[in-house]
Amino acid sequence: MKQNHASAIDRFDLFTLVFDILISIVGGIIVNRLIPILKEKFIRAQLWGYDLNKRNSKEVKIAESQGVIAAGIFLILMFIMIAIVFSEHLHPLSDFPHNKFIEYLAALLSICCMVLLGFADDVLDLRWSVKLLLPLIASLPLLLVYFANYHSTTIILPKPVRPLLGHQWNLGILYYAYMSMVSVFCTNAINILAGVNGLEVGQSIVIASSILMFNLVELQGSCSEEHLFSLYFMIPFIGCTFPILLRNWCPAQIFVGDTLCYFSGMTFAVVGILGHFSKTMLLFFIPQIANFLLSIPQLFHFIPCPRHRLPRLNPELNKLNPSEVEFKKKDLKPLGWLMLRFFSAIKCVRYREYKMHDNEVMIATTNFTIINTVLCWAGPLHEATLTQILLLIQIIFGTALPFFIRYYLVKFFYDS
Amino acid sequence: MKQNHASAIDRFDLFTLVFDILISIVGGIIVNRLIPILKEKFIRAQLWGYDLNKRNSKEVKIAESQGVIAAGIFLILMFIMIAIVFSEHLHPLSDFPHNKFIEYLAALLSICCMVLLGFADDVLDLRWSVKLLLPLIASLPLLLVYFANYHSTTIILPKPVRPLLGHQWNLGILYYAYMSMVSVFCTNAINILAGVNGLEVGQSIVIASSILMFNLVELQGSCSEEHLFSLYFMIPFIGCTFPILLRNWCPAQIFVGDTLCYFSGMTFAVVGILGHFSKTMLLFFIPQIANFLLSIPQLFHFIPCPRHRLPRLNPELNKLNPSEVEFKKKDLKPLGWLMLRFFSAIKCVRYREYKMHDNEVMIATTNFTIINTVLCWAGPLHEATLTQILLLIQIIFGTALPFFIRYYLVKFFYDS
Ligand SMILES: [Mg+2]
Ligand SMILES: [Mg+2]
Repeated sequence: MKQNHASAIDRFDLFTLVFDILISIVGGIIVNRLIPILKEKFIRAQLWGYDLNKRNSKEVKIAESQGVIAAGIFLILMFIMIAIVFSEHLHPLSDFPHNKFIEYLAALLSICCMVLLGFADDVLDLRWSVKLLLPLIASLPLLLVYFANYHSTTIILPKPVRPLLGHQWNLGILYYAYMSMVSVFCTNAINILAGVNGLEVGQSIVIASSILMFNLVELQGSCSEEHLFSLYFMIPFIGCTFPILLRNWCPAQIFVGDTLCYFSGMTFAVVGILGHFSKTMLLFFIPQIANFLLSIPQLFHFIPCPRHRLPRLNPELNKLNPSEVEFKKKDLKPLGWLMLRFFSAIKCVRYREYKMHDNEVMIATTNFTIINTVLCWAGPLHEATLTQILLLIQIIFGTALPFFIRYYLVKFFYDS
Repeated sequence: MKQNHASAIDRFDLFTLVFDILISIVGGIIVNRLIPILKEKFIRAQLWGYDLNKRNSKEVKIAESQGVIAAGIFLILMFIMIAIVFSEHLHPLSDFPHNKFIEYLAALLSICCMVLLGFADDVLDLRWSVKLLLPLIASLPLLLVYFANYHSTTIILPKPVRPLLGHQWNLGILYYAYMSMVSVFCTNAINILAGVNGLEVGQSIVIASSILMFNLVELQGSCSEEHLFSLYFMIPFIGCTFPILLRNWCPAQIFVGDTLCYFSGMTFAVVGILGHFSKTMLLFFIPQIANFLLSIPQLFHFIPCPRHRLPRLNPELNKLNPSEVEFKKKDLKPLGWLMLRFFSAIKCVRYREYKMHDNEVMIATTNFTIINTVLCWAGPLHEATLTQILLLIQIIFGTALPFFIRYYLVKFFYDS
């Protein structure tokens, strides 16, 4: 069914790439124009918020959910791109590559569903269970497409474990479960590493750039078609989200909303799964994985979780301190206590005990996110500096380290 | 590419149909449950309105855009349906029918895009140009799929004109333009025949039922696969929108929003185009076409168009009168005057001239919609009676007449 072209990209692919870049620039300009035009409409629709980490926080209404503008233009660009990519087959004698076409359609369907969910979440403020369940359902078409086009669920095991476990495993249905989990993880991972101006969209653009570089490197390899597929998505993604970054950068003129987090998460999941580099793509999520692991005690309520875990402003210094959550020591279950001690020992959180006047022993701990961890280490920071450090972490551990693992360390685990 | 099964449906198709009916019932129950649960969230998100045609209109906040609940559950049901429909090919030796699969994906992609647009329109109140442009772009994947699977753009001409114009015409690119126009028309046609409790969703369900009956009749024919495809969409559509009708019926507890109009319009366009019965489907839109033709003078501003054209309540009788628009006679261009005289002559509108105290000649005319036309003819009506009459018109001219044309009159124009 699937034809593996051993050849690299041809002239038509180059043409579509150039076209993709051009319409992405146009798309970015349109997003940039639309934001101020639509601002009043968003504020009138109650889609606005205060920037809590500013001195004049209660004075300015900032439009929320601006990610939906980027996502809308992205979808339009991709519809045009599909028409261009398949235009070489647009004469009746050509054999239309249905198997390639379903990948684009399924990818856009999953993305569009998550944009709809994200926007509904911003407007209606949905429950957590919905946020976990819907990406699972939205990934169904992806799994079917994977089945239709590849249905190989065999993974090659790393060399060190081969004497024990064999050369390869057929994961079967577990592989589909894994792909669903990737969708759920990606769509939510960016949303929980959030709360500082420019961070959600900044990390999304760093991840997209990492994927883009990886695709460019692999474009000369044997799977050029899959990486071309991913490039067609990543270029407009960066084009449409870049104006969002400019205006979401500290001090933010706009907020991105859950829409942007779900939109970018699903876009990455889709290209990772259908481009056959989901493992490499998860490497680009190392900071998000670290943040998720660190968040587990609060996400699963071993330790109380306040509604917002974003840093707290010290108005005198105009700098951010880690935010804290306080609770009675006796309310902490043994597992929660263990987690608190563990993450405190590896310096991810900082806690202190104190006594109330009624002799009740209280615990105050910094919240369990890497944003607060950075603030624990680097003291009070200006918001822009904090974002810069977090994006630097993203570049070091989410770009440089993965490339090192993928192109150097991998030699020790797999045959080239 | 496309295999035409001469056979009718097989046992697996019957199984999927039964499964479709079952999950549609479950979906309907879920929508029915979700409406009261989500009501507060919608009102808190400013998605509410007053029911202007009630005596106590300013007392009750009614949740708007409830169509998004039906659309969301519909999309989830369809994702499950896709998995079931293609489950017979879910063993590695089976030849996966990519050409069939792209139809489902493109259909859902177009529908999902229009739901997103509709919801954004409800929240942000978008401009008219957007409402015309976006369905055009959302129909691009449909056109590509049509090209990939059929790329026949030849139409058979009716017998009476054959001596002059020949037996068939190849419309080429015009046929694609026609399909785009069908998408744009369907998504907007239901939205402009609106404004009375239960009408938008009522007419959608009548149209869906007409399509469903037509599909059932044709299921034994040579194109059973296309009609099965349409059935898989229509059954969950009716299942998910029926609870909306129950609660939107006069006196309305909920409003449906533009979301429902775009959602149902695009769903019908999609099955009509990909099911190859777009001409028959347009017959089911005869009342909407009549309403569109009647609306042209106001839509294109030959005659002034107020923001709302819905009927006006007579609070003493608790009955509805046609709404009017007033303007200076001298502001009317000749073409506008001609249209006013024409539609008045065929009794679609009623107008009167009168003099202001400064001797300015004014015209007051009922608004140009078939809702107001019915009120011109049948005098003041209770809102529920008005909806019943309009749905009766839909059943007579949008169901009975099309079936008469399609199965009786057609003999005189085409060979069977
Ligand atoms: Mg968020
Ligand atoms: Mg409407």
